[in-house]
Amino acid sequence: MTIDALRHWRRDLHRLPEAAWCEFRTSSLIAHRLNELGFTVMLGDALLASSLVMGRQIDVAAQKERALRQGANPDWLARIENLTGVMGLWDSGRPGPTLGFRFDIDAVEVDEDGGEQHQPNQEAWQSHNPGWMHACAHDGHTAIGLVLAERIMAQAEQLGGRIKLFFQPAEEGCRGGKALAAGGQLDDVDALLALHIGIHAASGELVLNPTEFLCSTKFDVEFMGESAHAGLEPNAGHNALAAACMATTAMLGIPRHRDGMTRINVGQLSGGSGRNVIPGQARLQGETRGASPALNDYVFGQVQRIVEGAALMQGVSYLIRKQGEAIGINNSPELIEELMPLADAMALNTVHTRRFGASEDAGFLIERVQRNGGQAAYLILGADLSAPHHHPAFNFDETVMAHGVGLLERFIQHRLAVS
Amino acid sequence: MTIDALRHWRRDLHRLPEAAWCEFRTSSLIAHRLNELGFTVMLGDALLASSLVMGRQIDVAAQKERALRQGANPDWLARIENLTGVMGLWDSGRPGPTLGFRFDIDAVEVDEDGGEQHQPNQEAWQSHNPGWMHACAHDGHTAIGLVLAERIMAQAEQLGGRIKLFFQPAEEGCRGGKALAAGGQLDDVDALLALHIGIHAASGELVLNPTEFLCSTKFDVEFMGESAHAGLEPNAGHNALAAACMATTAMLGIPRHRDGMTRINVGQLSGGSGRNVIPGQARLQGETRGASPALNDYVFGQVQRIVEGAALMQGVSYLIRKQGEAIGINNSPELIEELMPLADAMALNTVHTRRFGASEDAGFLIERVQRNGGQAAYLILGADLSAPHHHPAFNFDETVMAHGVGLLERFIQHRLAVS
Amino acid sequence: MTIDALRHWRRDLHRLPEAAWCEFRTSSLIAHRLNELGFTVMLGDALLASSLVMGRQIDVAAQKERALRQGANPDWLARIENLTGVMGLWDSGRPGPTLGFRFDIDAVEVDEDGGEQHQPNQEAWQSHNPGWMHACAHDGHTAIGLVLAERIMAQAEQLGGRIKLFFQPAEEGCRGGKALAAGGQLDDVDALLALHIGIHAASGELVLNPTEFLCSTKFDVEFMGESAHAGLEPNAGHNALAAACMATTAMLGIPRHRDGMTRINVGQLSGGSGRNVIPGQARLQGETRGASPALNDYVFGQVQRIVEGAALMQGVSYLIRKQGEAIGINNSPELIEELMPLADAMALNTVHTRRFGASEDAGFLIERVQRNGGQAAYLILGADLSAPHHHPAFNFDETVMAHGVGLLERFIQHRLAVS
Amino acid sequence: MTIDALRHWRRDLHRLPEAAWCEFRTSSLIAHRLNELGFTVMLGDALLASSLVMGRQIDVAAQKERALRQGANPDWLARIENLTGVMGLWDSGRPGPTLGFRFDIDAVEVDEDGGEQHQPNQEAWQSHNPGWMHACAHDGHTAIGLVLAERIMAQAEQLGGRIKLFFQPAEEGCRGGKALAAGGQLDDVDALLALHIGIHAASGELVLNPTEFLCSTKFDVEFMGESAHAGLEPNAGHNALAAACMATTAMLGIPRHRDGMTRINVGQLSGGSGRNVIPGQARLQGETRGASPALNDYVFGQVQRIVEGAALMQGVSYLIRKQGEAIGINNSPELIEELMPLADAMALNTVHTRRFGASEDAGFLIERVQRNGGQAAYLILGADLSAPHHHPAFNFDETVMAHGVGLLERFIQHRLAVS
Repeated sequence: MTIDALRHWRRDLHRLPEAAWCEFRTSSLIAHRLNELGFTVMLGDALLASSLVMGRQIDVAAQKERALRQGANPDWLARIENLTGVMGLWDSGRPGPTLGFRFDIDAVEVDEDGGEQHQPNQEAWQSHNPGWMHACAHDGHTAIGLVLAERIMAQAEQLGGRIKLFFQPAEEGCRGGKALAAGGQLDDVDALLALHIGIHAASGELVLNPTEFLCSTKFDVEFMGESAHAGLEPNAGHNALAAACMATTAMLGIPRHRDGMTRINVGQLSGGSGRNVIPGQARLQGETRGASPALNDYVFGQVQRIVEGAALMQGVSYLIRKQGEAIGINNSPELIEELMPLADAMALNTVHTRRFGASEDAGFLIERVQRNGGQAAYLILGADLSAPHHHPAFNFDETVMAHGVGLLERFIQHRLAVS
Repeated sequence: MTIDALRHWRRDLHRLPEAAWCEFRTSSLIAHRLNELGFTVMLGDALLASSLVMGRQIDVAAQKERALRQGANPDWLARIENLTGVMGLWDSGRPGPTLGFRFDIDAVEVDEDGGEQHQPNQEAWQSHNPGWMHACAHDGHTAIGLVLAERIMAQAEQLGGRIKLFFQPAEEGCRGGKALAAGGQLDDVDALLALHIGIHAASGELVLNPTEFLCSTKFDVEFMGESAHAGLEPNAGHNALAAACMATTAMLGIPRHRDGMTRINVGQLSGGSGRNVIPGQARLQGETRGASPALNDYVFGQVQRIVEGAALMQGVSYLIRKQGEAIGINNSPELIEELMPLADAMALNTVHTRRFGASEDAGFLIERVQRNGGQAAYLILGADLSAPHHHPAFNFDETVMAHGVGLLERFIQHRLAVS
Repeated sequence: MTIDALRHWRRDLHRLPEAAWCEFRTSSLIAHRLNELGFTVMLGDALLASSLVMGRQIDVAAQKERALRQGANPDWLARIENLTGVMGLWDSGRPGPTLGFRFDIDAVEVDEDGGEQHQPNQEAWQSHNPGWMHACAHDGHTAIGLVLAERIMAQAEQLGGRIKLFFQPAEEGCRGGKALAAGGQLDDVDALLALHIGIHAASGELVLNPTEFLCSTKFDVEFMGESAHAGLEPNAGHNALAAACMATTAMLGIPRHRDGMTRINVGQLSGGSGRNVIPGQARLQGETRGASPALNDYVFGQVQRIVEGAALMQGVSYLIRKQGEAIGINNSPELIEELMPLADAMALNTVHTRRFGASEDAGFLIERVQRNGGQAAYLILGADLSAPHHHPAFNFDETVMAHGVGLLERFIQHRLAVS
Repeated sequence: MTIDALRHWRRDLHRLPEAAWCEFRTSSLIAHRLNELGFTVMLGDALLASSLVMGRQIDVAAQKERALRQGANPDWLARIENLTGVMGLWDSGRPGPTLGFRFDIDAVEVDEDGGEQHQPNQEAWQSHNPGWMHACAHDGHTAIGLVLAERIMAQAEQLGGRIKLFFQPAEEGCRGGKALAAGGQLDDVDALLALHIGIHAASGELVLNPTEFLCSTKFDVEFMGESAHAGLEPNAGHNALAAACMATTAMLGIPRHRDGMTRINVGQLSGGSGRNVIPGQARLQGETRGASPALNDYVFGQVQRIVEGAALMQGVSYLIRKQGEAIGINNSPELIEELMPLADAMALNTVHTRRFGASEDAGFLIERVQRNGGQAAYLILGADLSAPHHHPAFNFDETVMAHGVGLLERFIQHRLAVS
């Protein structure tokens, strides 16, 4: 039964959630399963453009050791050198388009609710990795992907074309999507679907055209100056903290934009060493937002200029590192049209347009496919929730996973069925 | 033999250095010894004005436990409730002046040199408290004080008046002197001597009038605002980090002073929590300096005004905490005159005036005695060094400790001898 | 003929435009005419709350002298002590409501076009006060008010209730409305109408419900510190320019607001005297804006806090002076309903809602009437223009003034006709 | 009589003082006189390196017109194209060294005292150029130079070598010295003398080795951005005023220097246009100082970096213009030795060393001569004063001018007398 398999996978993943870029156990299990079913497995640099990986500072050896202890598949773990994430390719050998499906696999930094009311505790599948939790339903997304892989193989003889299942790492913080998009495996995809469980939609609802995805850039800045004794030779220092303070002040003053909502924040700053030492280094973490890519780019462009100028003022050097990025999403209208009757046939309650109001790095994948002439869409698979996303008591109605598999399967049949 | 006793004490203390305000083992041993010799022992609130204690954030229970493990005297440890430091009072019962002597007892945050060339390693009395070291000779000062106590008792019948031996905690960072001065035990002292081993003087030298003690104030500032989601409602925050940045920038701009050298530094700053949260709190550590108390006060006065103004600008509250303070020192000329022949008689090479160029919180003690009509002086007891003060390989020629005891003993005889 | 009278008045005023708060000639002529017709005239402190007068720094004696030279009525000029502006009250002595009408009378700082194409030049009624021009049609508004006064008297026997004609000074820069509203003469008004010629509407159009009036506060800040020789005693100064710079920087960083559009600008700043003198004074001019009064208040509230904080940081004093203020306008729906058939009867092309997109200090009058339970509305009387408002070549189709008189007259008849 | 000639010249110049770079009348009279006496006259680009001229923004035509009205020599005025300043060369045709003498000729921006007590008023030779006054004795210096020229010619047959008399423009604000030094006419000078009347020395005193000349750089900064409507499109601006404010704040924070006194001041700042316009331009005037050239360079180097960084932060361009510059002065010891007996012979009371404590751009001339292997000295010719330098009531004991001529004449005889 599909729903049993879905529950099995979802709860296994829920029990052992893994942080962004640390999904070694998850990736090894996905790779093993896809391979077992007959998919060609792609990993690492073959899948992601490593130069665009963002927000990744991990101890690979320690994470792999942990993953192994927690039941990773040893063979596939060994083949995953550094970068997590998996793609499974199935090629019918027959003519036809290439379809892509994206499932994100990482967990969030949330300490799961320990109360008796919380279903995972009642049934003993709560998180065993303290501080981390699948509180954004990526466990469900992954389960959908794995069961869809089974369904594809079960009807392989009736299908033409090719199918690519993308299991994306590091969606949280919008850190992995850009590298996956740039990896190139999406370039021959004719139609891509991504979905998210929950998000302002109830069980039985399907939002075909979510809107108002916020564009955002997450960035770290490091200023590197020269320490000096503040009493004996203050002139010998190059004050990295002063640069950080002036940059922060100036960033807060980035002008509003005529065309709509923008945001700027410096959320963390630390610098200096001893009280009597001119600070030789300082770091800050910030983010920009905009109602459109152009608005976000406007703000981040000013951030870059301000950082450069502040560094120059103090005679220090600097590094700006993007730690995450999201762009807007505009579903392909033809795809929305195509999906509507499929959803209707499943008796799903389709909603055309609803505000998303958050960030999603699937935007990079969708834009890549569309730029290459393909179609792409991001769907909200409604689900009753026990608590909001990222909340310690988050849980979702597991039955909706079957809707997800069903919809994607029907889409595959619609596009790839051998007549 | 005096020198054996001095070495014994010095090396015992060297082996188990204790941080400022954590000198529980040291204090318990001093108290026990003074009591044993017949001194009246004073501790804690009876000795220090606790409201003026600076730069003290310690876990008393944990420190006492450690001290006990490391051989503290259990009885006296129990009597030391919170504040370290000890005074021993000897009263001859005969008329005569009251003399005071100050010895500082804390260690510094330095990781002792592990090399074979370093004498403590050769003889196995190197620091057993990692990260802490008697690298400023306070172990030697304390040893001098304890052996002086013996010498006083050995000639008690020939002396009149009274003697107070002050074993001061937390000289490093200039954190304890002000509280000790304000405690009141110096108010009846007619003459006070303090000494320091080393400091630009060689073995056999005695500097009678060191000059250019830097006035300084060490301070921490905390800004307390209101966090808010930087994307959803930026207007709801009160940005503590912005206040800290603006305060820092403005402090660096405190104008120079016509009358001489001033300094200002913000050595550390940290604030904020998540990247997407308006920072609700921020902290900074700074220091001011001046060639005179008036110059230091000028700078610190501006710091206070700037912090208040920056907090107001952002609608946040703030706390300024003094973490240390030092004022200038001007030795009483009569005392210098009195000491010169005593030093000559010991064949010490007396140096009248030499630049000190650092900070010392003995200044508060000296100023207190002088303000009450007494005389006071700070002396440099020359010693050949293996490395500069606060250096991991610091060590000093232990024989000079005997010069110290000798000089102080002669001064006592000169003032208190019953004719 | 109404249109001849309208043209006469309009061109006379156009020829001698007077700046905000300097409308001495204009006011004297209005007062004379209203009195002549039988209205009770109110002036000065009886009309305006002088403590709320904004943006007024004038030489009264010089302005009155000029007004006299330019044909002011000497008797009424003498009665206008300081504040310009006039109200005419007509009381039927019969029961009935009190109606109010507002006409603004000041000119703008624009140098009138000297070209032959410009109609006033062709007919020799162009501005004779260089640098000042009725380029916002207030000459037309005033003419409408004066001719309406005639029309009222012509049918006095058929009307009940009371009528108040408000000739408001200093609308430009939003400087006079607040003082007029607070003066109290609006408190018994049951229905108030204000109108503006032009503004995105063509001759023959009447906009009944203009929207998106911007709330705004215009402010000046002065910082008063202490000068000192920058070389000889930098410490003796209190740097007013530094305060202004820090305030400016911080104002630019006032956070965006969740609820909508806000703006902040420091448009001018000047401070200091000689190159080698610590600046003892500095001045800046700024403005805040918001899509709602609450949003504008949010920004201006932060401005005040920032100025206070910046002054404190530098030990200087400060003054914030409001130089203008505008709030939003929401026409009373019943009044719109009532006016629509009256306009239709005149064959005017009524437009229900159109974006205004600028600021108007009639908002204070309208809000005052509405708060006291009355109804009020601001109308756009369409007019073909030769150039945009405030342009040197501005002129308007004078025939629309007759529409204005006609509409207001019909409204009076509708409300006050004795049955 | 020498003293009558000195008085005549001094009072003529005093009556018609000319600002820096505007000394057209003065220069024409000097040139005429030198030529008349037989000197070869050099002017303009042949004398000054025009690319190093600082702080000069004048209307040449208007100034020449004024000079002509005030009695300039028309022939020589015509030959002075743009740059004021004159050098007279006398060549004996016999072997011998080249001697140089420097006299500064400009007045200061001071409104002369109109009181009866002020000697020039009593005798009707007070300033006729309102706002300008010879309040720094340059009228006296020039008179000394012109009478010295006579004295040289009177004994021409007894002298060998060559003599150059430099009449330097624009000493006030330290604007002309650097260009004169770089002009090259000093490069063959074997010994240069400059003198100043007054300056902490009484009539009859001669200070041979004044010290503590302050090094200083006077600079203007202009920021050029982009204006934009602050309400409609704040994002379109490039805020030059914001750049100026941040630069000012950062300049005030230039760290103190270990090696001695430094100063920084922004004495004037103005920027922006209308209240509702993002400021497109801003200007500031500042100065740096240092106890040594290295210290002044340290501060000015940071100024340049800060301005560049601040401009970059706001995306604006900038110009830094030096408006004046002074370096230190160290008199050649041999020259002091040589002058001492000459002064003694005149019964002058020689003072070896006295603090100057201000800036003098003769430093560039002196440094140029010394760098080329020559000797140079700056002397204080004591004079009783009626009020301090630059004071409206300034006047000096005119008899000391004769001491000046006498000393320089003796020096010439000592060096150039044909034996």
